[in-house]
Amino acid sequence: MEKRVEHIELKPEMQVDELVDAMGKSGVFSAGRVAKAVEIYCEMLEAGSTIFMGVGGAMVPGGLRRVLTQAINEGLVNVIVTTGANVTHDLIEAFGGYHTRGEALVNDAELRERGISRIFDVYVPQQVFELFEDRIQPMFAEVTKEGAQMSSAELLRRIGSRLDDENSFVKAAAVKGVPVFCPAIADSILGLQAWLYTQEHELNIDCLRDIREVVELANNAKEPGAMLLGGGVAKNFVFQSMLLTPQSFKYAIQITMDRPEHGGLSGATLEEAKSWGKLAPDAKAVMVIGDATVIFPLVMASVLKRRAQKL
Amino acid sequence: MEKRVEHIELKPEMQVDELVDAMGKSGVFSAGRVAKAVEIYCEMLEAGSTIFMGVGGAMVPGGLRRVLTQAINEGLVNVIVTTGANVTHDLIEAFGGYHTRGEALVNDAELRERGISRIFDVYVPQQVFELFEDRIQPMFAEVTKEGAQMSSAELLRRIGSRLDDENSFVKAAAVKGVPVFCPAIADSILGLQAWLYTQEHELNIDCLRDIREVVELANNAKEPGAMLLGGGVAKNFVFQSMLLTPQSFKYAIQITMDRPEHGGLSGATLEEAKSWGKLAPDAKAVMVIGDATVIFPLVMASVLKRRAQKL
Amino acid sequence: MEKRVEHIELKPEMQVDELVDAMGKSGVFSAGRVAKAVEIYCEMLEAGSTIFMGVGGAMVPGGLRRVLTQAINEGLVNVIVTTGANVTHDLIEAFGGYHTRGEALVNDAELRERGISRIFDVYVPQQVFELFEDRIQPMFAEVTKEGAQMSSAELLRRIGSRLDDENSFVKAAAVKGVPVFCPAIADSILGLQAWLYTQEHELNIDCLRDIREVVELANNAKEPGAMLLGGGVAKNFVFQSMLLTPQSFKYAIQITMDRPEHGGLSGATLEEAKSWGKLAPDAKAVMVIGDATVIFPLVMASVLKRRAQKL
Amino acid sequence: MEKRVEHIELKPEMQVDELVDAMGKSGVFSAGRVAKAVEIYCEMLEAGSTIFMGVGGAMVPGGLRRVLTQAINEGLVNVIVTTGANVTHDLIEAFGGYHTRGEALVNDAELRERGISRIFDVYVPQQVFELFEDRIQPMFAEVTKEGAQMSSAELLRRIGSRLDDENSFVKAAAVKGVPVFCPAIADSILGLQAWLYTQEHELNIDCLRDIREVVELANNAKEPGAMLLGGGVAKNFVFQSMLLTPQSFKYAIQITMDRPEHGGLSGATLEEAKSWGKLAPDAKAVMVIGDATVIFPLVMASVLKRRAQKL
Repeated sequence: MEKRVEHIELKPEMQVDELVDAMGKSGVFSAGRVAKAVEIYCEMLEAGSTIFMGVGGAMVPGGLRRVLTQAINEGLVNVIVTTGANVTHDLIEAFGGYHTRGEALVNDAELRERGISRIFDVYVPQQVFELFEDRIQPMFAEVTKEGAQMSSAELLRRIGSRLDDENSFVKAAAVKGVPVFCPAIADSILGLQAWLYTQEHELNIDCLRDIREVVELANNAKEPGAMLLGGGVAKNFVFQSMLLTPQSFKYAIQITMDRPEHGGLSGATLEEAKSWGKLAPDAKAVMVIGDATVIFPLVMASVLKRRAQKL
Repeated sequence: MEKRVEHIELKPEMQVDELVDAMGKSGVFSAGRVAKAVEIYCEMLEAGSTIFMGVGGAMVPGGLRRVLTQAINEGLVNVIVTTGANVTHDLIEAFGGYHTRGEALVNDAELRERGISRIFDVYVPQQVFELFEDRIQPMFAEVTKEGAQMSSAELLRRIGSRLDDENSFVKAAAVKGVPVFCPAIADSILGLQAWLYTQEHELNIDCLRDIREVVELANNAKEPGAMLLGGGVAKNFVFQSMLLTPQSFKYAIQITMDRPEHGGLSGATLEEAKSWGKLAPDAKAVMVIGDATVIFPLVMASVLKRRAQKL
Repeated sequence: MEKRVEHIELKPEMQVDELVDAMGKSGVFSAGRVAKAVEIYCEMLEAGSTIFMGVGGAMVPGGLRRVLTQAINEGLVNVIVTTGANVTHDLIEAFGGYHTRGEALVNDAELRERGISRIFDVYVPQQVFELFEDRIQPMFAEVTKEGAQMSSAELLRRIGSRLDDENSFVKAAAVKGVPVFCPAIADSILGLQAWLYTQEHELNIDCLRDIREVVELANNAKEPGAMLLGGGVAKNFVFQSMLLTPQSFKYAIQITMDRPEHGGLSGATLEEAKSWGKLAPDAKAVMVIGDATVIFPLVMASVLKRRAQKL
Repeated sequence: MEKRVEHIELKPEMQVDELVDAMGKSGVFSAGRVAKAVEIYCEMLEAGSTIFMGVGGAMVPGGLRRVLTQAINEGLVNVIVTTGANVTHDLIEAFGGYHTRGEALVNDAELRERGISRIFDVYVPQQVFELFEDRIQPMFAEVTKEGAQMSSAELLRRIGSRLDDENSFVKAAAVKGVPVFCPAIADSILGLQAWLYTQEHELNIDCLRDIREVVELANNAKEPGAMLLGGGVAKNFVFQSMLLTPQSFKYAIQITMDRPEHGGLSGATLEEAKSWGKLAPDAKAVMVIGDATVIFPLVMASVLKRRAQKL
């Protein structure tokens, strides 16, 4: 009955999935949770779950852009909710811009003079924001030809389908028909650009339309599952999508450094979501406390391997 | 030149401000930062700063509703940016609902059956959401008489001016002319209710209008200061308001449990904001790592005392 | 039955205890826990508890030296377990040395050249370690006249009784008969100095004697209570003192920034201690997530007030 | 000159080292730090560093016992400093005991009645402590035949050489001549058992002897490097070993969830150690914020691969 903690044993040629497997046999602390996240993810895939992925934090500047794109292309995710920042930085790269590796402990006033904006140890050169403006403004003109009032998801679908970069998650999502919601789009450089556009043109991003669209997806979701990177609006919007449906999430995984004690939703336990009916009482759920730039690739590499074995 | 660490000494009848003063003489670790937050706040008030307050997290369910209201009524804040949740829970109480004190370690499936939604150790009885629906729907009908397309700040001004509860921060803000922005309003129960309303009526919350309004406030701000509780959209929206102006914040205080290492904006250092030009290179700034339900009242009680002494 | 969250209201002349009282009426998140810590502390005092205080972290450099001394002098603590560092820095000040207020973000290689050792934003000038050596070496000679083999608690009693500084917690403890255990004394500058002394003299700090002495105290403790600042050895040694007795702690308060997920004892929940029998199944216990330099003075100022009202 | 953030790309058959390599090309946030830890570790090995490993936290109950043993057997570590708990739990398994996988959210009073002690989600059945007592007491009798006064490292060498379990890190260390220091040995079940032994026999664990031995190792260390899992005594004792030598660490890696703001050494930045002269001004150092049960195996599997490629 009882399961012993089996100690992790390393091998030089070890595959990621073997390491995750060893973590699963140990089964405790965060290692055990990483393994459980993989198990739950694989279970979602087998159950044919509609998988909602919340992408908070600075995942794109942090090097996870292609992992998101792979997840979309491999059919591992069906709905995305993210921040304006992640979309902005995806588009920056799609437009030919880039991010560089810098230092976290640095004189920020000096960086400012050098025209560099900092995201922890990622540097964003000022000119990529200029590039972004040059490219996004005509794109707004183009996409509003289909109508000037839209949800954030509709805006991003229209933009994504016009991108020419196979590594862009916004494009991949548009191609694969995965809606990308950005409920706080006003709270980003993309939002500021959209507002600039409205100075002389018509564009209305109606946030209530996002609700309509996500509630419909939630209503139609099959064995719904949530994969949450970080917290914030991305987490809440995924979870609240079920509130106006008779459904609730059957699976949930969260990877975050946030904690519950101060009451914010970002760090709230997944258990708490059961009291709201967002998560089913018998849902399979695991929270991994850790940085998504490490944990998410670890989990997804293992998921890819296990899925390949099933196919 | 050098300042020695003077050890804190306690007295039974000690006033909050005396304790903060003692923390300031110690001057180190988080105690020193609490004292510095008070100093910076008082300096902002003396400089006649336009103070932008970001209110992330579950501050209203967490017992800080009146502190916010006091801050508004005492003229300690000029612009508020918050979450839909804080507005929702403020309105719930304004409509006669309430929150109760529960347990954090509890069977959430059982709570669900008992009709209780949990926010860490706060319980929200299901009926207050029904009350909320009963009251907010006719209010939407009323406020849209002035026009059906509006920013979140305009919506909340219209709602606030119709409330009958002196303890409501939304009402106090409306009365005092303090705009309350809610850039991610779709991501809340209030947003869901607004969407329900649009099923049969017209209501369009145009998030780009929020940008227009906040940029105008930022443009006109005098010696702008930022007081940030938690992170998320509330923090970012306050900071980005300066990006399209020639100004930047001269003062900044953040109280949060978030950390910088995983690159999210919520825990980003205030130094980082200088690289973006959100914060002036010579700004006075302090970040206090701690739960706002403890730190914010501590800071504000001391600020009230010091301001009273000046008057 | 159910208790509503009553919102905190501030007053300019507010006493610390009034603020804690308001936090208690709110009753949730960390504010509620601060108030509960005060309630439990007062209950311990009324029950005539033998109070074991674990003092981990850099409390003395961090400005809490006098708060510890006050706690001892006011009879609020009966047994102390701490780190070699806290004792070292207490003695440094007793010998006429001092700590200064510095910066946390600084060039540490430069500090090294300037002869300054850093503890977050506290600076320790190199000369105070020289002063420490000058004064502690002859003191070892003196105290070993009573015998060269001893527990850490016996060593600190002997040292404390020879100090000439009313603000020293080591002296206050010696005067009041409060034993100060330092089970990892070898892991500190004090330990290094003791080892230097043994190069030419006899001194044997037998750590097993500490166990004997603390187990005897635990055996005789009345309604035992634990007040824990931080975790580490200080926390564990306090808790394990009960393992070889038929008793267990009836009360426990911990103030810490540590968390449970990675399995370390420092952040383990107080509930977990019940499974070990360290804490009684029906013990009154609360953990406050926060920096002790803020939370501990807040708690103790309120305790002092409430105790004064009882007398 | 500038290095772009290259996005991580996953492959199903990906080896751990390939993932770490991809994290290194991204180079930012925690992923970048994991990769940097591997680089520094490999550099230490190439430089022929004397590697001091600090093992705080509950690494053995957490499933990392064999990883430690592998590190010793593969010559990846030269000196170990750990807690009494890690030694106790290693010996428990060497004596035939075990740990099982439990739940973190559980009724601890009930666990107590069932005779189970909990370490987060690891369960320790009471009988293994009885087994431990049965086996360790005669072992004390045996090892004290070589003399009754000793350092903790000498005690553990003597115990280790008598163990019959190839997976024990204490045994592996004794076989390979890697000293295992346990400066706070009194603060553990092993310490309590040692004290019980002294009730009727002679045994004196002189903690100052540990200093003598570690300082000698530090003096003779070649290109000294520190690998720190968690903080506490294990971290400090490793670092302070250099204080009485003309040397300082040339390399340092720390994997921890601790943070610097409250001034405790556990979460102090590695930069801070430079101000003390523990770390060389030009040392290569990286701190990874994360749970060691995930990060340490990730790092070590990659190190094993890279070392195998060099051989």
